[in-house]
Amino acid sequence: MRTVAVALALVSATIGATAALSAEDPLMKEAQGLFQPIPNKPPVVKDVVATPALVELGKALYFDPRLSESHNISCNTCHQIGLGGVDMLPVSIGHKSQKGTRNAPTVLNSVFNTAQFWDGRAADLKEQAGGPIQNPVEMAITHQHAIEMLRGIPGYKPLFEAAFPGDKDPVTIQNVEKAIAVFEATLITPNAPFDKFLRGDGNALTAEQKAGLRLFIDQGCASCHNGINVGGGMYAPFGVVEKPGADILPPTDKGRFQVTKTADDEYVFKVPTLRNIELTPPYFHTGKAWDLKQAVGVMATSQLGEHLSDDQISKITAFLHSLTGEQPMVTYPILPPSTATTPQPEM
Amino acid sequence: MRTVAVALALVSATIGATAALSAEDPLMKEAQGLFQPIPNKPPVVKDVVATPALVELGKALYFDPRLSESHNISCNTCHQIGLGGVDMLPVSIGHKSQKGTRNAPTVLNSVFNTAQFWDGRAADLKEQAGGPIQNPVEMAITHQHAIEMLRGIPGYKPLFEAAFPGDKDPVTIQNVEKAIAVFEATLITPNAPFDKFLRGDGNALTAEQKAGLRLFIDQGCASCHNGINVGGGMYAPFGVVEKPGADILPPTDKGRFQVTKTADDEYVFKVPTLRNIELTPPYFHTGKAWDLKQAVGVMATSQLGEHLSDDQISKITAFLHSLTGEQPMVTYPILPPSTATTPQPEM
Repeated sequence: MRTVAVALALVSATIGATAALSAEDPLMKEAQGLFQPIPNKPPVVKDVVATPALVELGKALYFDPRLSESHNISCNTCHQIGLGGVDMLPVSIGHKSQKGTRNAPTVLNSVFNTAQFWDGRAADLKEQAGGPIQNPVEMAITHQHAIEMLRGIPGYKPLFEAAFPGDKDPVTIQNVEKAIAVFEATLITPNAPFDKFLRGDGNALTAEQKAGLRLFIDQGCASCHNGINVGGGMYAPFGVVEKPGADILPPTDKGRFQVTKTADDEYVFKVPTLRNIELTPPYFHTGKAWDLKQAVGVMATSQLGEHLSDDQISKITAFLHSLTGEQPMVTYPILPPSTATTPQPEM
Repeated sequence: MRTVAVALALVSATIGATAALSAEDPLMKEAQGLFQPIPNKPPVVKDVVATPALVELGKALYFDPRLSESHNISCNTCHQIGLGGVDMLPVSIGHKSQKGTRNAPTVLNSVFNTAQFWDGRAADLKEQAGGPIQNPVEMAITHQHAIEMLRGIPGYKPLFEAAFPGDKDPVTIQNVEKAIAVFEATLITPNAPFDKFLRGDGNALTAEQKAGLRLFIDQGCASCHNGINVGGGMYAPFGVVEKPGADILPPTDKGRFQVTKTADDEYVFKVPTLRNIELTPPYFHTGKAWDLKQAVGVMATSQLGEHLSDDQISKITAFLHSLTGEQPMVTYPILPPSTATTPQPEM
């Protein structure tokens, strides 16, 4: 009896899988050609071996508000682990409540982006990590002062020594950037329904999500939003067909042009990842759209010249919800205390 | 041979323990009469059963910056889990970079305090939790708006329902306060060397720390700083013998007088806990002392009329370092996202 039951279950499972596969096959195959799943393990940051001590140091630095002039802003302030890796603000609030000029991109899966920042001005996470620290409207501390700060907190010395055992004088800004980058590379979100679909599970997406994926490919969204991060792999002009309103695309921010000074790069931005997009409102580099459906509609009009129906937008949005992966489980780091020798905050 | 060696080791251990105990006995006994160890498990918050769902909700709320008008300040901003439960600033930075008037007290072990805030104006953690939310220089949101906010974040509904299964309409400010209080009650730091000493381990303190404890008792520090939190159990005038300078005790802040309007309460403050004191600079309600030794010296002069020698101050400070317990290991909560229906931040 038991053997028969098992055999029947196997047959039934095989039939089910085949039926699902034959119906899915073209869409799944096409998707597998355009996208890749998020791996289950963090990727290697170029030239850096991620030892546990290095990841721990990077985590401490990521959460330490004393890397800011006021001792009040950490990496996690604008890229919160529990808020999809963002701050859920149109633009971030920095030193002395100054406002940033662009919406904070998510730190989650950022290791898979081809470059960092909306304009790609940092080649990788290491280069990115040092930016906000010294940006006067963000953390507003010089690199030199950041290092004085860390050297003034005695408890950091053993953490740096453990993380960089070969270095004679390990408390340097380069090592700060390396450590933060290595920690950030652990912030990946595997096993989204879409990842399971890409790995062959035809039941991982709902019928509506599959219809949305079909539209996402056929309408042309996937010509920019593709690869492992469903975006993050290239640059594109915003408003290539039809410029959106000045609230969404203000003429003053010329995007990548400000980096390359090349006319072709006017209003060009890095295509953002759509991974975990439901967790990271508001949308666009200006953070002007709180509604994901609105954002989908604006993108279709401005980038593809398509006026999608409500039904099409709903389906694409349903697909985008399948991009939400397992969020990182991070134990809050215990930071070494300030002492009488620590440079004091400038409030 | 082996049996003999073990037997010898046992004899030697017994002699050692006895020797340590006989020498320690009076100090340990005296300490056990004045102080109690932090328990290994969180205590019960009055009238509230701490289910896992309630603690999880409280943790989410504790870390959620959307309980502030700007969506930028959470409980954890001023009471950081990784910074000894404080922000390591003289006074906190609140809404639109306004400054608070008193140093943020630690959330760690705060459940053991007799009342909350420097002036004891909140009877317990539940009452405290609602305060900063609506303080215009802190989170600066009305209770009503806080509830609109949470109701506008669809993902909170199931969390409140799980935490308050009996309630028809569980998203209320009272429940917010309960949940935060229950989470905060988990933030205790057991097993400090001093706790081990109080439980009978004569070797848990160094000789210098024991000398410091002796001074701490004999000089009179323990007449206010006693009980489970080595403080936190009573009120006392600051400057009872000799008023410290106006930088440390400005005449404008009359402490508990502002709550009771009783002349006797002028410049009276809740005696702060000394638990984890090495992790929570700067010191005093004004946050004006970054050096723990300086703080010890000022307290001796102002409260006891004693001018301690450097050696005495060093010993007392060494004892204070024995009050650092195991810091809470908190997994960063994943918060439900804002949506098109969420009230937007006022930046």
